[in-house]
Amino acid sequence: MTERVVLAFSGGLDTSVAIPYLADRMGAEVIAVAVDLGQGGEDMNAIRRRALDCGAVEAEVIDAKDEFAAGYCLPAVRANALYMDRYPLLSALSRPLIVKHLVAAAQRHGGTVVAHGCTGKGNDQVRFEVGIGALAPHLKVVAPARDFAWTRDKAIALAEEKGLPIDVSHKSPYSIDQNLWGRAVETGFLEDIWNAPVEDLYTYTANPAEPRDPDEIVLTFDAGVPVAIDGETLTPYQVIAELNRRAGAQGVGRLDMVEDRLVGIKSREVYEAPGAIALITAHQELEAVTVERDVARFKKSVDQRWAELVYDGLWFSPLKDALDAFVAQTQRHVTGDVRMTLHGGRAVVTGRRSEASLYDFNLATYDTGDTFDQSQAVGFVRLWGLPSRIAAARDGRLG
Amino acid sequence: MTERVVLAFSGGLDTSVAIPYLADRMGAEVIAVAVDLGQGGEDMNAIRRRALDCGAVEAEVIDAKDEFAAGYCLPAVRANALYMDRYPLLSALSRPLIVKHLVAAAQRHGGTVVAHGCTGKGNDQVRFEVGIGALAPHLKVVAPARDFAWTRDKAIALAEEKGLPIDVSHKSPYSIDQNLWGRAVETGFLEDIWNAPVEDLYTYTANPAEPRDPDEIVLTFDAGVPVAIDGETLTPYQVIAELNRRAGAQGVGRLDMVEDRLVGIKSREVYEAPGAIALITAHQELEAVTVERDVARFKKSVDQRWAELVYDGLWFSPLKDALDAFVAQTQRHVTGDVRMTLHGGRAVVTGRRSEASLYDFNLATYDTGDTFDQSQAVGFVRLWGLPSRIAAARDGRLG
Amino acid sequence: MTERVVLAFSGGLDTSVAIPYLADRMGAEVIAVAVDLGQGGEDMNAIRRRALDCGAVEAEVIDAKDEFAAGYCLPAVRANALYMDRYPLLSALSRPLIVKHLVAAAQRHGGTVVAHGCTGKGNDQVRFEVGIGALAPHLKVVAPARDFAWTRDKAIALAEEKGLPIDVSHKSPYSIDQNLWGRAVETGFLEDIWNAPVEDLYTYTANPAEPRDPDEIVLTFDAGVPVAIDGETLTPYQVIAELNRRAGAQGVGRLDMVEDRLVGIKSREVYEAPGAIALITAHQELEAVTVERDVARFKKSVDQRWAELVYDGLWFSPLKDALDAFVAQTQRHVTGDVRMTLHGGRAVVTGRRSEASLYDFNLATYDTGDTFDQSQAVGFVRLWGLPSRIAAARDGRLG
Amino acid sequence: MTERVVLAFSGGLDTSVAIPYLADRMGAEVIAVAVDLGQGGEDMNAIRRRALDCGAVEAEVIDAKDEFAAGYCLPAVRANALYMDRYPLLSALSRPLIVKHLVAAAQRHGGTVVAHGCTGKGNDQVRFEVGIGALAPHLKVVAPARDFAWTRDKAIALAEEKGLPIDVSHKSPYSIDQNLWGRAVETGFLEDIWNAPVEDLYTYTANPAEPRDPDEIVLTFDAGVPVAIDGETLTPYQVIAELNRRAGAQGVGRLDMVEDRLVGIKSREVYEAPGAIALITAHQELEAVTVERDVARFKKSVDQRWAELVYDGLWFSPLKDALDAFVAQTQRHVTGDVRMTLHGGRAVVTGRRSEASLYDFNLATYDTGDTFDQSQAVGFVRLWGLPSRIAAARDGRLG
Repeated sequence: MTERVVLAFSGGLDTSVAIPYLADRMGAEVIAVAVDLGQGGEDMNAIRRRALDCGAVEAEVIDAKDEFAAGYCLPAVRANALYMDRYPLLSALSRPLIVKHLVAAAQRHGGTVVAHGCTGKGNDQVRFEVGIGALAPHLKVVAPARDFAWTRDKAIALAEEKGLPIDVSHKSPYSIDQNLWGRAVETGFLEDIWNAPVEDLYTYTANPAEPRDPDEIVLTFDAGVPVAIDGETLTPYQVIAELNRRAGAQGVGRLDMVEDRLVGIKSREVYEAPGAIALITAHQELEAVTVERDVARFKKSVDQRWAELVYDGLWFSPLKDALDAFVAQTQRHVTGDVRMTLHGGRAVVTGRRSEASLYDFNLATYDTGDTFDQSQAVGFVRLWGLPSRIAAARDGRLG
Repeated sequence: MTERVVLAFSGGLDTSVAIPYLADRMGAEVIAVAVDLGQGGEDMNAIRRRALDCGAVEAEVIDAKDEFAAGYCLPAVRANALYMDRYPLLSALSRPLIVKHLVAAAQRHGGTVVAHGCTGKGNDQVRFEVGIGALAPHLKVVAPARDFAWTRDKAIALAEEKGLPIDVSHKSPYSIDQNLWGRAVETGFLEDIWNAPVEDLYTYTANPAEPRDPDEIVLTFDAGVPVAIDGETLTPYQVIAELNRRAGAQGVGRLDMVEDRLVGIKSREVYEAPGAIALITAHQELEAVTVERDVARFKKSVDQRWAELVYDGLWFSPLKDALDAFVAQTQRHVTGDVRMTLHGGRAVVTGRRSEASLYDFNLATYDTGDTFDQSQAVGFVRLWGLPSRIAAARDGRLG
Repeated sequence: MTERVVLAFSGGLDTSVAIPYLADRMGAEVIAVAVDLGQGGEDMNAIRRRALDCGAVEAEVIDAKDEFAAGYCLPAVRANALYMDRYPLLSALSRPLIVKHLVAAAQRHGGTVVAHGCTGKGNDQVRFEVGIGALAPHLKVVAPARDFAWTRDKAIALAEEKGLPIDVSHKSPYSIDQNLWGRAVETGFLEDIWNAPVEDLYTYTANPAEPRDPDEIVLTFDAGVPVAIDGETLTPYQVIAELNRRAGAQGVGRLDMVEDRLVGIKSREVYEAPGAIALITAHQELEAVTVERDVARFKKSVDQRWAELVYDGLWFSPLKDALDAFVAQTQRHVTGDVRMTLHGGRAVVTGRRSEASLYDFNLATYDTGDTFDQSQAVGFVRLWGLPSRIAAARDGRLG
Repeated sequence: MTERVVLAFSGGLDTSVAIPYLADRMGAEVIAVAVDLGQGGEDMNAIRRRALDCGAVEAEVIDAKDEFAAGYCLPAVRANALYMDRYPLLSALSRPLIVKHLVAAAQRHGGTVVAHGCTGKGNDQVRFEVGIGALAPHLKVVAPARDFAWTRDKAIALAEEKGLPIDVSHKSPYSIDQNLWGRAVETGFLEDIWNAPVEDLYTYTANPAEPRDPDEIVLTFDAGVPVAIDGETLTPYQVIAELNRRAGAQGVGRLDMVEDRLVGIKSREVYEAPGAIALITAHQELEAVTVERDVARFKKSVDQRWAELVYDGLWFSPLKDALDAFVAQTQRHVTGDVRMTLHGGRAVVTGRRSEASLYDFNLATYDTGDTFDQSQAVGFVRLWGLPSRIAAARDGRLG
């Protein structure tokens, strides 16, 4: 029986040409699977038709926008997931969900191989293959760009030779990955890390330097999850899409960084993630109000590890599950409203209110009504400092 | 012999009135010590004269601006010190240095008691008293506001009764602490955490929302320490002062947060720290370029602990020393230039260059000249994911 | 109405005398509550009668042995809870459960004050009072030894004066706390930390140096919890009691350490905890077999924090709950058998077997049947070492 | 010019046969380098002659015993280095030092390739190759067992064919690595993890179950490093060798564990490391006496990371250097004596004394002379528990 290859299909040149290439090279039938994660751009049906036109025996378009928002983006909000304190993991979050759908498609269509378009020096190959190894260890994986030294030039030549319905004349200088959670851009001139990004890299965000009126927004969270904007209840997908629109219009969420890849090199990346940055900013502040101090301090190491794990392709891992259990417990009372001003590239919290607040006006105020018994502080300070006092005396004694 | 009390003297109403009050209550001679940490405002000599006019037997003004910049602010830069990811520790960093000078003054003048103006519900009492306990455990400490239930109203009454040279009529609504590293403001209406800050809280920073031209700046670091701006070599103090000016003019460094105090309560704080935020932002990015990945990941927990320790009053502690040793080792190659755009409240890195860069164009590029051997990735990915693959198979087997 | 004080009653001299003392001093009715945590020794009914004879208006004995075993000791096993890598938290685990019953008794009997016998320099005062503050913040707390400078001599004098039914002539040189989870001993001559413990300190453990035959035991765990010994299903209480007997007979679980107390001092402590040490040893090894590597590495920091929190009196805290959620998730597959030899003071694992094992003979063996593809290692090693290779090259370049 | 291969030479069958094999296969000259790390056994000169007899063009024996003790074992003591809380890293510590000498030999002899005998499923290949990549990235590496699918049977056949001076008839069932720091044994029947180790696995340790008299020992440390036994000053090598003898004679230091390898699998390992275990046990206790609490708590995560890094082959890495700087700072006062009883497989601390002790009898004693002011505890306990009290009240309020 002919082997069937399930291909993660984007509709672009590389994965389009991969269809006849894999069919030829492997003597296999190719099933193209495109997953809609809110990346916008081209119509998903056109993408599907292109796959068939390129020779796929089956082509599926899967609408996973709501699943992505609820099951992947929102957990990232609860973990304040920013790799290296900045990158909101937009590609890293999407790959496990694509993997899930590829594996399901392989099951539906009798596929025994999964193919993806990643190179051998990026992070996404790891996310694809470790994910597949966890969900469906019996599936083989092939990555033409890496395993067959497949290049863009070869792809173009093959497209022309086969007469594929792809426009190969337009060569964008940008390599882009985008979805509901944000947009990543790489391009040659940014490989010189002294070069500044230019304005036309960006499509999710307006130029923050241009004067415009600020936008005030009230975000409502329930147990760490955003549920409403300005009082209107929305689905997770709607919250993120709406924030992408409003925060993007104010230039919020542009990032330009040098990043440590899992494969051991540093790379330059430019991102824009207006909704993600606005949501995480608001969530962090609501945590400051509703999460107890020791939890907050420990959660920082959990959040860091969560982001590293997901970045490193270990979404489907036992540690991820255990960190999620910790996070879930901490979010039970992260409920309330955060008011933000979106303006000039900044999402600035200006107010917070919560039934679950641990901020106690009567303890905090310096006004009348203060219920804090200051006399307790004397003993506290004394015993708090006792270990360092004893150590300092020892150090002094020994000179 | 009459007991001598060394008073941490700010020149304001409370510590001015504390001079005759402590003299009366304790039958002691009061020595006023004012430490100049770049707080600006009133002339330090006027402050000194006021202390004498209020009855101090000695009054000293100590210029510790350079010491503060080099020995307290710059170590905070190397540790990216932001408590709760935001607060740059401006008061927390200053107290240990004030303590050091109070202790030295006590030694010079035969003081046996140190007095400070802190209340019993803040962090600064801890920083004063734990510091004194470490440096000079034989000194007694007294905090009139906390220990003698001293209040502002009592202070005003006493000032009028004694005819002290203090203007008690002007009652600022703001409680302020400021120095070279930034400015903290508390005020009654902010104790409702839903209320937004108002523009007249701020003096170090211009309104970021007002249109103005951006300012581009190049910061040069040597071993984690900023040494020049736009190519001009400056002292630590000059770097920070200049950045306060330039970043402040662009509205950079405003912070509004709910914060976990060491004494167990949450409080609302507004800060502005233009130089601190600009410096730490630039430093973090230069670390991204020059610090190896495993170091960077571990250093985040060290940085967090450093900030917590300093916030918690443990500057003079063995753990602080050990964390400093770790940090110093990591900073040996944090050397190079960072270019930033200061504008609209944001300090945005747009370029970085370093002789010590770990970014390797030839490994990172997707262009010709790529020296990364992609074939190595296959085995790497396989073994990287092996533990989670084995665990997933186990989980599947057990259902 | 007369105030009612709920007293944590041990039946010993101090808490016996505290009954009339508190009644006199506070003009209150005293309700004595003794909690049976498997401490053995005196009959609990005799303790109850003594409380009444000393003047308690009510006296309750609560059998909490099963609750202690299941709800306090076993969670400690799952977290491998050893403070400073050694102390199995026997007193620390008991106090929150006593607190729970004191609070319930206060509710039943209309108590408004809780009294305990701790001094002001130990950890137990913290565990009592923080626990009460969390469960019943409206209750006042009084600790006669600390708050009224109550001493043993005063207690004896009062006992004689009141003719209390206490034998004050026998003065044990040892201060002891014991329960199902172990036994703690303090005594004057051990306060010189160069002095060695002597044999008569111990009652839970036989002398490990005496020759005897070894005892082999098979412990069965289910989801991190021990459920059977040598194939016989037992309750948590029975497992621990049986292990105390069998491991104790072999001298397992003696500990002699200098320990960091929460109140800032170091103290010398001698413990014996045969069941606890045997259980944790077995559990750790079963985790080595069934828990994935990244989970195991991260769990060490969770386990450490868990032990510190419980030691520090924060059993009833949000962080404890969140750490428990993490631990619970990691324990789902910690199921299987561990065979140990108990002998000569040591509990040595000699075999482990588990349906949930992650040990894969076919991957591990160097024999025929090996399924590990060694060729994958080359690429793995190369990329694993790439960051340190790049850093070393940089360091070399810069000299 | 003929390529020269520097071979890490043990004198055993595999590396002996590798000499002619590599010469043939690579057309290269082989330089055999044997490093003496105190592994005992065969005479090093006999090993050297065998290499020459097998066809090596050069053969060197390097006495690195003192260097290993001082520069590799003692840093492990200071970091209490026990991977997975048990394994003292005996192989992991030795490989970087062997690498250092291989690299030096390559430089001396014009070698361009380094060869080692490791397989592709163990940790040692990583330690060799990552080390070489850091110290001498220009050197190629070859591992015949892994890269050329070299097996023991092929080795025996080749030895017989070539008439090599190796006794191939004696086939030990054990695979052994041993040096001054301990001994590792693998063997087929232990690959069933339910099987117990047997007595003849061990050579560094006597059977702990046999009755014998205990041995009391006093270890003196200076700044975290052992410098004397029973008052006699010794070199690092002498300390470890003497402890191997005395602790080994009492059966101390046997370990049987399932271990997480870096390459992603779990393996069964049996170790014996009498000196290492005795030293680390003593060092931990002296730290308990001389290291301040916050340092001790944080150092546990540093120690864990140190052990993981060294286990994972990253001895020559920037993070190792930074952790070393932290550890060095913490060890300044880890000075004093520890008395231990070695007996029945256990090394038990019975006393400790130090000029640098932080244990303060006057603060700790419950006797007269107590200088601890218990009244300070009330306020301390109250504020210590305030965050969890506020959180509990919130949780109660919300139900």
